[in-house]
Amino acid sequence: MNFKAVSYILGWILNIEGALLLLPFLVGIIYGEPQAYSFLIMAAVCVACGGISIFKKPKNLTFYTREGFAVTALTWIVMSLFGCMPFVINGDIPNFTDAFFETVSGFTTTGASILNDVEALSHASLFWRSFTHWIGGMGVLVFLLALIPMTGGSPMNIMKAESPGPTVSKLLPKVRETAVVLYAIYITLTVAEFLFLIAGRMPVFDAVTTAVGTAGTGGFGIKGDSMASYSPYIQWVVGVFMMLFGVNFAVYFLLYRRKFRAAASHEEARYYIIIILLAVALITGSLYVTGSMPEMGFADKVRHVFFQVASIITTTGFSTIDYEALWPQFAVMILLGLMFMGACAGSTGGGIKVSRIVTLHRTVKKEITLFFHPKRVMSVRSEGKTVPAETIRSINVFICAYIFVYVASVLLISFDGYDFTTNFSAIAATINNIGPGLGRAGPSESFSLFSGFSKYVMAFDMLAGRLELYPMLVLLAPEFWKSVIPIRKNR
Amino acid sequence: MNFKAVSYILGWILNIEGALLLLPFLVGIIYGEPQAYSFLIMAAVCVACGGISIFKKPKNLTFYTREGFAVTALTWIVMSLFGCMPFVINGDIPNFTDAFFETVSGFTTTGASILNDVEALSHASLFWRSFTHWIGGMGVLVFLLALIPMTGGSPMNIMKAESPGPTVSKLLPKVRETAVVLYAIYITLTVAEFLFLIAGRMPVFDAVTTAVGTAGTGGFGIKGDSMASYSPYIQWVVGVFMMLFGVNFAVYFLLYRRKFRAAASHEEARYYIIIILLAVALITGSLYVTGSMPEMGFADKVRHVFFQVASIITTTGFSTIDYEALWPQFAVMILLGLMFMGACAGSTGGGIKVSRIVTLHRTVKKEITLFFHPKRVMSVRSEGKTVPAETIRSINVFICAYIFVYVASVLLISFDGYDFTTNFSAIAATINNIGPGLGRAGPSESFSLFSGFSKYVMAFDMLAGRLELYPMLVLLAPEFWKSVIPIRKNR
Repeated sequence: MNFKAVSYILGWILNIEGALLLLPFLVGIIYGEPQAYSFLIMAAVCVACGGISIFKKPKNLTFYTREGFAVTALTWIVMSLFGCMPFVINGDIPNFTDAFFETVSGFTTTGASILNDVEALSHASLFWRSFTHWIGGMGVLVFLLALIPMTGGSPMNIMKAESPGPTVSKLLPKVRETAVVLYAIYITLTVAEFLFLIAGRMPVFDAVTTAVGTAGTGGFGIKGDSMASYSPYIQWVVGVFMMLFGVNFAVYFLLYRRKFRAAASHEEARYYIIIILLAVALITGSLYVTGSMPEMGFADKVRHVFFQVASIITTTGFSTIDYEALWPQFAVMILLGLMFMGACAGSTGGGIKVSRIVTLHRTVKKEITLFFHPKRVMSVRSEGKTVPAETIRSINVFICAYIFVYVASVLLISFDGYDFTTNFSAIAATINNIGPGLGRAGPSESFSLFSGFSKYVMAFDMLAGRLELYPMLVLLAPEFWKSVIPIRKNR
Repeated sequence: MNFKAVSYILGWILNIEGALLLLPFLVGIIYGEPQAYSFLIMAAVCVACGGISIFKKPKNLTFYTREGFAVTALTWIVMSLFGCMPFVINGDIPNFTDAFFETVSGFTTTGASILNDVEALSHASLFWRSFTHWIGGMGVLVFLLALIPMTGGSPMNIMKAESPGPTVSKLLPKVRETAVVLYAIYITLTVAEFLFLIAGRMPVFDAVTTAVGTAGTGGFGIKGDSMASYSPYIQWVVGVFMMLFGVNFAVYFLLYRRKFRAAASHEEARYYIIIILLAVALITGSLYVTGSMPEMGFADKVRHVFFQVASIITTTGFSTIDYEALWPQFAVMILLGLMFMGACAGSTGGGIKVSRIVTLHRTVKKEITLFFHPKRVMSVRSEGKTVPAETIRSINVFICAYIFVYVASVLLISFDGYDFTTNFSAIAATINNIGPGLGRAGPSESFSLFSGFSKYVMAFDMLAGRLELYPMLVLLAPEFWKSVIPIRKNR
C-alpha cells in the first residue's frame, strides 16, 4: 500500500474542505450569527492538517485498485470527521455521534436526519448541512482529479471507486477532462434549478439550499415539513430536477455535444424514464381504486405522486406528503421497490442502479431461454454492446455483498428492539442513501430514536451505499490491516 | 417438447397418487368417518385418468433439461389439483381455493394453513394433510425414478429439476439406484422418529402424522397449538429429527457405507450444525439479556430455542411457543435470517440452502482478496473441490431470480392492504416453504385472511420455492408456450 500517496491525497482533500467551510462561515456572517465562527475554526484546522500532508509531494503517485478503494473510503471518513465538528463546536448538534451521523448522511447524500426540529438550526449550519449534499453528490475526489495531474491508471482507479455504477464511462479520453466536464454539467444544472426556484418567488436562502440538496440527490430540507409548504410550481420544479439529476450524466454530455439521437437512445435513461412513468401511473391508479386522498383533484394527485416517485427513485428523500399514512400499502410497496432500484449509474443518485437491475433481469431471461435452446450462443447486451462476463460477475457479486451487508445491518440494529418494518426500512433508507424509511424511521419521524451503536452501523451503511460497498468492505478486510501494520513497524 | 413422454409420466404420477389416496381412506375407515369415501372416489378418478395416459408407452422417453423442468412443474400442479379434491368433496375445506392452497402447502412441505380450527377436521383429512408433506419431502418423481427405467440422461434431468440444491450428488452411478437409496434413508429415519415418539407415550395417530410431517420438514400439525402441548421429551425428539431431516442425505449414505470420516468432514453439514448452535447460543443469550420468558429455567429456554431454530432453519414450521410475542426483536431477526438460509441441499428442507450461502460468501471474499492480490489465481472451493464457474454463475442467477420473484410477490399481495411485516414475511414463509411468518401471518395466526388472488400468488411461490424457481419460471416463459402451440396445430 502506497501510504505516502494516500496521505498526500487526504491532505489535498482537507485543504479543499477547508476552503469549502468558508462558505457556511460567510452565510453565517451575512445573517450575523455567532455560530459562523465554528466554521472558520474548522477551516483553519483543515488547512493546517492538510498543509502538513501536502508539504512534500511523494515521488510515486501510483494508485492501484486497492489504493483507489482505500483512499476513497478514508477520504469520506476523514471529510465526515472534520465536517461534523462545526456542529459540535457551535452547539447546533452538541452530541458527536449525532453530528457525525448527520454529516455522513449529508456527504453520502442520504438525507436521514437525527434532528427533531430542523428549523432551530442557524443559517450557517443549515447551509453547510445542505451543501454537504452538493459536495458528496459528484464526489470530492472527482473534483480533486480535475485539479491535480496524476500518472498512469491512477486517476481511473480513484474515479472507479468513487463513481456510482457498475462501470465508469469515460466521456473523454483523459480522466481529468472527464472530471471537468462532469462538474461543468453539475454546476450548470444546479444553477438552472436555482434560477427556476427564484422565478417561483422562493426566498434566496431556501432556493440555494434546495438546489444544492436536489443536485446531490440529498434530501436535507430546511423546513420541518420538507417541501410540503411550498407552492405547486416549486414542487414541480424540484420534482423535475430530482428526476434530471438521476439521469446518467453521459446523456447530458451527449446533448452538449449535440448528439441528440445518441442521447435519446441511451438505454439506461430510457428504462429509468419508463419506470418512473409506470410507477406514477400505478400509484395514481391505486389512489383512485382505494379512494385515498379524496379531497385532491387529478392534477394535485399526480403532482404528489410524481414528486414522491422522483424523490425515492433518485434516493433524494424530499417529501410533500406523509405517503406512509395517506397511501395504500400497494403504493408504499412500489416506493420500497424503487428505493432499492435507485437511479441511473453515472448520476448523483444512490441505490442498486437501473443498469444493474436491467443487466440482472437480462441474465435471468437468458438463462431461461437457454433451457429451451441449450446450444444457442447468447450474450447479455447493454447500451447496444455485449456486457463482458467480468461485468456480469461483478454485478452478481455486488448483489450478494449487498445482501450480506444488509442482513448483518438489520440484525445489528434490531438490538434497539424496534419493529421489523422500522429496522428493515431504516437500513434500506441508509444503504440506498435515501433518507426517510417506513414505520418509526418514516418520512414524518427522525433517526434520533436509534441508539449510538445503531447510528454508527447506519453511518457505515450510508458510506458503503454511496461508495458501492467495496471501498468500505476493503477497510474491513484482514488483508488491508496486514498491509498497514508492517509499514508501521518499518518506521 | 416431447409431449407424449410428459403425459406418460403424468399418468404414472396419477396412478401413484391414486394408490397413496387409499391410505387416508383406510385411516377414515378405522375411525368410522364418512369423510373417508371422498378419498376413495378421488383414488378412483386418479387411477382412471392415469390409466388412460399410461395405456400406450411412448417409444421416445428422452427428457432434456427443459422437459425435465416442465414435467416437474406440471407433476406438482396436477398432484395438487387432484390431491385437494377430497377436502372439497368431504366438506372439510369446502372452498376450492383454500383446499388448493392447503394441498400445495402440504406437497411443497410449507405448512402454511388457511385453517383457523385444525382440530375440527376428520382424521382422514388430517392424515392426508400431513402425509402430503411426506410425499412432497423427497419428491414423487424421485419415487417414480426408483420404479420405472428410463434412457440416457433423462432421469438425471428430472432428478435435477425436483431435488433441492445447486447440484445433485449422485450417490450411486445409476439414478435409479440413487433414488432407491434416498427413499430407504427417508423411510428409515421416519420410522425411527415414529418409534421414539411412541416411546414417549404419544398417541399412535399423533406420532404418525408428526413423524411424516417432520420427515418432509412440513409443519402441518394436528393441534391448534402445534407442538406446544406435548411433553418436553416429545419436543426434544421432534426438534432433533427436524434437524436430522435438514442434513444433506449424502451424509447418511456415507454413514451407511461406514465412511465415518468422510461423513464427519462433510462441509455443508458442518456449517449447518455450526449455524444451528450459533443461533441457539445467540438467541438464548438475548433472552437472558432482555429478561424474556423469566418464568422458565435454562433447560426449558434452550429446549424452546432449539426447537424454534431447528423448525425454522429446516423450514418445517412447527412451534412450541409464540416466539414473535415472547422473544426480543433481535431473536426474531435471527429466525428471519434462518428462514432465508434454509437447510442443506439434498435434504427435505427448503430455503436458499446452506451450500449456496457458503459459496456466495466465498465468492465475495474471493473478490475482496483479489483487490489486494490482483494477479493471484483463485478459485472458490466447496466440499474440498473447486466449484465450476458454471455453478457459481447459476447460483448467482438463482439469487437474482429469487429476488425478482420475491419482490413481484410482495407487490402483488400488498393489494390486500396488510402491513409490510405481514406481506414480507408471508412471502418469506411461502417461497422458503416454512409455514408461519410474522405479523398477521405469524405462528399464532392463519393464512385465511388473505384474498383468493393472494393465495394463488403464494401457491405459485410455494411451488417455485420447492422446485427452486426454474421449473415454475419455465412455465411462465413465452418460449414454453410457443413450443406447446405448434404441436397442437400439427395434431
